[in-house]
Amino acid sequence: MTASRGPTRAAARDWTRRRTAKRERLEAVRPFVSGRVLDAGRMRDALHALLRPGDRVALEGDNQKQADFLAGALADCDPDVVHDLHLLISSISLREHLDVFERGVARRLDFAYAGPQSVRMAQLLADGTVDVGAIHTYVELYARMFVDLTPDVALLCAEQADHEGNLYTGPGTEDTPTIAEAAAFRGGVVLVQVNRLVDRVPRVDIPGDWVDLVVESPRPYALEPLFTRDPRHIGQVDILMAMLALRGIYERHGVTTLNHGIGYDTAAIELILPTYGERLGLRGKICRHWTLNPHPTLIPAIESGWVESVHCFGGEPGTERYVAARPDVFFTGPDGSLRSNRVLCQLAGQYAVDMFIGSSLQIDADANSSTVTEGRLTGFGGAPNMGHDPHGRRHASPAWLSLLTGEAPALRGRKLVVQITQTFRSGGTPAFVESLDAVQVAEDAGMPIPPIMIYGDDVSHVVTEEGVAYLHKATSLADRREALAAVAGATPIGSHMKERHVEALRRDGLVALPEDLGVDVRAAKRSLLAARSVEDLVAWSGGLYDPPARFRTW
Amino acid sequence: MTASRGPTRAAARDWTRRRTAKRERLEAVRPFVSGRVLDAGRMRDALHALLRPGDRVALEGDNQKQADFLAGALADCDPDVVHDLHLLISSISLREHLDVFERGVARRLDFAYAGPQSVRMAQLLADGTVDVGAIHTYVELYARMFVDLTPDVALLCAEQADHEGNLYTGPGTEDTPTIAEAAAFRGGVVLVQVNRLVDRVPRVDIPGDWVDLVVESPRPYALEPLFTRDPRHIGQVDILMAMLALRGIYERHGVTTLNHGIGYDTAAIELILPTYGERLGLRGKICRHWTLNPHPTLIPAIESGWVESVHCFGGEPGTERYVAARPDVFFTGPDGSLRSNRVLCQLAGQYAVDMFIGSSLQIDADANSSTVTEGRLTGFGGAPNMGHDPHGRRHASPAWLSLLTGEAPALRGRKLVVQITQTFRSGGTPAFVESLDAVQVAEDAGMPIPPIMIYGDDVSHVVTEEGVAYLHKATSLADRREALAAVAGATPIGSHMKERHVEALRRDGLVALPEDLGVDVRAAKRSLLAARSVEDLVAWSGGLYDPPARFRTW
Repeated sequence: MTASRGPTRAAARDWTRRRTAKRERLEAVRPFVSGRVLDAGRMRDALHALLRPGDRVALEGDNQKQADFLAGALADCDPDVVHDLHLLISSISLREHLDVFERGVARRLDFAYAGPQSVRMAQLLADGTVDVGAIHTYVELYARMFVDLTPDVALLCAEQADHEGNLYTGPGTEDTPTIAEAAAFRGGVVLVQVNRLVDRVPRVDIPGDWVDLVVESPRPYALEPLFTRDPRHIGQVDILMAMLALRGIYERHGVTTLNHGIGYDTAAIELILPTYGERLGLRGKICRHWTLNPHPTLIPAIESGWVESVHCFGGEPGTERYVAARPDVFFTGPDGSLRSNRVLCQLAGQYAVDMFIGSSLQIDADANSSTVTEGRLTGFGGAPNMGHDPHGRRHASPAWLSLLTGEAPALRGRKLVVQITQTFRSGGTPAFVESLDAVQVAEDAGMPIPPIMIYGDDVSHVVTEEGVAYLHKATSLADRREALAAVAGATPIGSHMKERHVEALRRDGLVALPEDLGVDVRAAKRSLLAARSVEDLVAWSGGLYDPPARFRTW
Repeated sequence: MTASRGPTRAAARDWTRRRTAKRERLEAVRPFVSGRVLDAGRMRDALHALLRPGDRVALEGDNQKQADFLAGALADCDPDVVHDLHLLISSISLREHLDVFERGVARRLDFAYAGPQSVRMAQLLADGTVDVGAIHTYVELYARMFVDLTPDVALLCAEQADHEGNLYTGPGTEDTPTIAEAAAFRGGVVLVQVNRLVDRVPRVDIPGDWVDLVVESPRPYALEPLFTRDPRHIGQVDILMAMLALRGIYERHGVTTLNHGIGYDTAAIELILPTYGERLGLRGKICRHWTLNPHPTLIPAIESGWVESVHCFGGEPGTERYVAARPDVFFTGPDGSLRSNRVLCQLAGQYAVDMFIGSSLQIDADANSSTVTEGRLTGFGGAPNMGHDPHGRRHASPAWLSLLTGEAPALRGRKLVVQITQTFRSGGTPAFVESLDAVQVAEDAGMPIPPIMIYGDDVSHVVTEEGVAYLHKATSLADRREALAAVAGATPIGSHMKERHVEALRRDGLVALPEDLGVDVRAAKRSLLAARSVEDLVAWSGGLYDPPARFRTW
């Protein structure tokens, strides 16, 4: 090799270490395996053989479905054998997810969301039991699996597998294909718990090529009906906010493509489309294409012909038969059932829809918001990804262009990022606060920056029962704060507002009160809801929707 | 149904129209099909039977591989039978992609990039022959396929298929799985041209479930070696810029995760890592995890132990054996060959890496840049997605935090978005201009906003042979413009700069000249390149790299 070819290479390097390690791991579990099928009764032994201290392990804890059998086996491992694992879990949902840390099996954690375990999560962080790498938005965590956080082992879950490892995820595809791809193609071991081993899966969602081991779990995997909102709990204030949002934002900006969060406020919007929306003549003009899970509260709008398409992050228990009967609207497979995919739906929710609307627990004077409150480390989920203006977007739409921003030649539209909340939550807690609890949490936990879910400068609109604030129209920070304060009611942020300031903001179009939008506050009644109970939703679905037992009252 | 359940539903609606239409289409092509296999000799007839006027058709034209057989058959269709198609093509690369419009087969186009056909594209747009929906960044176009642009038919390409439709895409996976998923799960027909029909594919990249029809193409699909840069064409100015970038950005910010564009300037950076970078003691400290195609110019850095991982958008002809022999670095399948995936790599390039660096044809005084120049409608490709600060990012890294931005509590880091360019291009054309040609093009074509590739406010650094401008440190728009002008040399943007202004900017750290960075301009010689020719790259690879014929000079 000539000098120009640089320094002589060091002694021949081994470039197949990951592959070799994988072969050794699979060799070590052979006593517990027949073909690709692991003996469920030997799960703990198999993990002892499979895992090495310090391994990076992706444990499937999705927004809804959970690899709970594997999580339990992991939590049960002997910390003398398996320790110092680095876990990647998108949603910390099970007790076992944190047991592994308390038992010393795992040490480091990268995650996205910790709703059901948020209090304990905060404690373990404070105690130093968990060493948190970072809190991510979902897709950011998957993205890192292809860069600096590639898993050594992936512990996943699916509905069914055949003996060649072909997987059927069923309606709740969620994160499984993405995590499997990251592990399978870089020398990681992919182990999947399935509800059933079958001779032939109804459809192949993940090729057997990508799967090393499957195990039939003694119980079907845990699955939460996170997106079911009982219309009985939707109150008049939610309905008023829904009316304000519909007239002040959806109609005004002509929002045809959108994502909805899971609150009662957005459920109210879904439920007044066939009534209030219909009377406004908005069918076909707004809300045509959606990215969201199959919300039962969307059924009346679908049945009334409002909805052309819905792409889903995951499924929703009870909607299986309904979705399968509506293939023109939902993405479904050759077997007839829903095909969801979190990474692609998050991509669609980031780049292809014009509006994100959701709630937060706390909003400050600059419209920064967070669900991290004192003693709770909730994380972010998908909100940061969908709740910001993606600067990489280049296609125009009327709604996007209606928020024209920037100076020529860098003129561009902007995504509608809407925060919707009552000024006070149940128990009289103000939603608008001087300082987010997240600031203190960050300080206590030694985080480099406060865990803010949606940054204020990404928020274009705020809706409360007082009215709509058009923050995107503010030309100064002061105006922006005033517009927000004008809809913040009697909270610490809103209470100082003078009436004449509000008048000026209304004149300038920065704030709209109900009367400015032609919304009759007295009409905000539950009779406006197309369905007032889960039973009504079942009726709308023609009996196709089967609500989970906890939502049945009849 | 009670009143609360809303208006009575209209006459029972058919919810399976897409599925029915699909069945009818497949029925219509039956004369040309055996099993799932189409007769290549009857391709035109088959398309006549399959397609309906006005169909939305995703035609696979990727950055590298092309469904060229299907594109040719489509261009050959009778416009009396097939007309007014709406095409989705991520990269307009073939003559046939535009022939379909001239022949009246297609009318509307949504796309992302039009490099090789950019001149003709501009003409057809001006003539009104093509009705452009929008120019997208890659992932944005895929995202819309799950929202408002779901394909009725997808015309794709792959390396091999078996008789059940299982596909092997080979190293160049690129866009195929994503488009197939969008079409297959919403009643679209998926038709794939393959180089070879086989009894068993080496690995399943796309399950046969998702594929309706396959056809063995008479020729292997067209594939461009887009990412091969011959080191012979790297000049001293490129090397100087590479040294400045390495010291002024990579070393200063500790950039460990990154994406590189395909220019000679970034190729120079790759090639001085094992020489200049090694002498600076930077191995292991920077450039550890990459998202990019298998650039041949990265081989010396890989062989010298700089690179821990590379995730790829697509493959690169000639690198197959090399990549297969380096599975610790590259993502490879159970068959040993590369697994790429554009959508996941773009996601990684957006959210998981700390730096994007690339060139543009024109940059204005505010650092807005575009590759759209007069008479050329190039489009965007992946740059807008990776070349912006993703506001959805929540994980911290030292490089990201080193660009701390925002006001408390909304403090956050920022992605490094670097533009690298010589002040003048070949032929003496200035890279820095008063007004981007894109502004005029937008006006002429009636676009709603100018096609800007990277917005100035997203750019953190600009590197030229003059030095490095740290735009992210500017606190005013005026400072920002001055810092940019200070490195813009004798172009219309740079020529007005006074020396004392530059001194002040250097003092404030907004600009660094070579001497400020400890870069000896005289050392910028070709001897610094670890490889000075394609032959050298082959030697570095131990003979594993097989350059395409056009790059062979020996």
